[in-house]
Amino acid sequence: MSQAAMTHSDLRQKDARAVRAVIRSGGYTRHTAGLAAGKLQCNLAIIPEDVALDFLRFCQRNPKPCPVVGVSDTGNPFMPTLGADIDIRSDVPKYRVFRDGALAEERTDIADLWTDRMVTVALGCSFTFENAFIAEGIPVRHIEQDKTVPMYRTHVPLAPAGIFGGEMVVTMRPIHRDRVADAYAISAAFPHAHGAPIAQGDPAQLGIADLQKPDWGDPVPVREDEIPVYWGCGVTPQNVLLKARLPLCITHAPGHMLIADLSERLDEPTRLTPYS
Amino acid sequence: MSQAAMTHSDLRQKDARAVRAVIRSGGYTRHTAGLAAGKLQCNLAIIPEDVALDFLRFCQRNPKPCPVVGVSDTGNPFMPTLGADIDIRSDVPKYRVFRDGALAEERTDIADLWTDRMVTVALGCSFTFENAFIAEGIPVRHIEQDKTVPMYRTHVPLAPAGIFGGEMVVTMRPIHRDRVADAYAISAAFPHAHGAPIAQGDPAQLGIADLQKPDWGDPVPVREDEIPVYWGCGVTPQNVLLKARLPLCITHAPGHMLIADLSERLDEPTRLTPYS
Repeated sequence: MSQAAMTHSDLRQKDARAVRAVIRSGGYTRHTAGLAAGKLQCNLAIIPEDVALDFLRFCQRNPKPCPVVGVSDTGNPFMPTLGADIDIRSDVPKYRVFRDGALAEERTDIADLWTDRMVTVALGCSFTFENAFIAEGIPVRHIEQDKTVPMYRTHVPLAPAGIFGGEMVVTMRPIHRDRVADAYAISAAFPHAHGAPIAQGDPAQLGIADLQKPDWGDPVPVREDEIPVYWGCGVTPQNVLLKARLPLCITHAPGHMLIADLSERLDEPTRLTPYS
Repeated sequence: MSQAAMTHSDLRQKDARAVRAVIRSGGYTRHTAGLAAGKLQCNLAIIPEDVALDFLRFCQRNPKPCPVVGVSDTGNPFMPTLGADIDIRSDVPKYRVFRDGALAEERTDIADLWTDRMVTVALGCSFTFENAFIAEGIPVRHIEQDKTVPMYRTHVPLAPAGIFGGEMVVTMRPIHRDRVADAYAISAAFPHAHGAPIAQGDPAQLGIADLQKPDWGDPVPVREDEIPVYWGCGVTPQNVLLKARLPLCITHAPGHMLIADLSERLDEPTRLTPYS
């Protein structure tokens, strides 16, 4: 570790590359919400090449929970389409290592686990539309309350591909009834970040028994003038990878994302020359 | 051939499934523009499984020319995420067969070429945003003139993946200068159908020598009050496959698309249950 540990507020004003440099050196291991404002943050799945085609098919068939924003070459730890110097072995503050379908450990570096058969798939993340909500005056409850967004298992079936399948995991955000249409329209503009909601209202329609008992994250209150709105969640692929019982796969730890150099809106001119 | 050949106008009022049934029976072998109004039409690339992961990486890195909307299971000629009864061996009016990097033949059925190692990749198509332009009162010159959209090789580099790479092919549509911003905004809403333009104005910036000499399709006039606007083109992947010199690959013939059951807007509720 080449520098003293930094806090979240130390990093808020730094750009993506500088934040990654601190993370790479071991100087920051906490969540990335709010860091490198305006930059794309990514969920990660690091998987063996022999299941990568099926995993990409799975993501293509389930774009709401699994919007692909980057795919590495096999065995190559760099991801030049996402950022000039990204090294996927070290640039995420916290990783989860799964072995044979169970969480084996959390780590801050995976250099000694990396092999020339691995493929990294980066998926968009809800931070993108949450930032847009705040910019448009739609409050985001779990951010206001400094909590982790509540996440729920559902009975909504995913389109299977090879060994990958199961049910969708969703996030829930309470939205004032007068802003629900705006929330749909704003998030629909970010198909690379889960896109429009998959449902609103009664949690029972999704097979959720109690909104106050999320499967991951923290419960948040839904006020009388608010409607619970549900989006596809980036924990879905972790759940699906877990079920596939791969000998080894690696993901980010929830909330501890890869920060890319791309604008979170994936707008011009970045998209013109993706391989600069 | 179980029924007499049908004309384009015979099919205009039929739904996607009925149009596919006519095509499947050999009763229609012409272009699909304007058929099954409102339904997604797709470019196709049928490739060996051993290069499919690289091809999907290539498409992910070049979403403007190569927006993936469907991927088959290996060896499975059906594409249930695009339409309940789609049989990719027969449901396209005209195919192109490439062998060792050269066009070998055009056909109306590929059943005898299909193998259990093949993967079909379906890509969005510009018909989608052209329909939106017409609905919003932006004229589309090549449609008005009953021509094929002009297409051009450029010097814009594509992000490579494995054996796949090269330069982008673009389409050009002359847009009245007062509607260029609208054309950007409307097409940007369809990232699965090439999205926003990649450039406007001087063709030299893209390495195009003469707009009146397209590499494919027909020239169309650009009037004094119009600006030439350029979009990523679905011929790009054909060009890239050709360069890769695969022993065998199959595409649709330009303009002779696969018609899916999905809304061309990929809007709710179709996306909720992609595997019904």
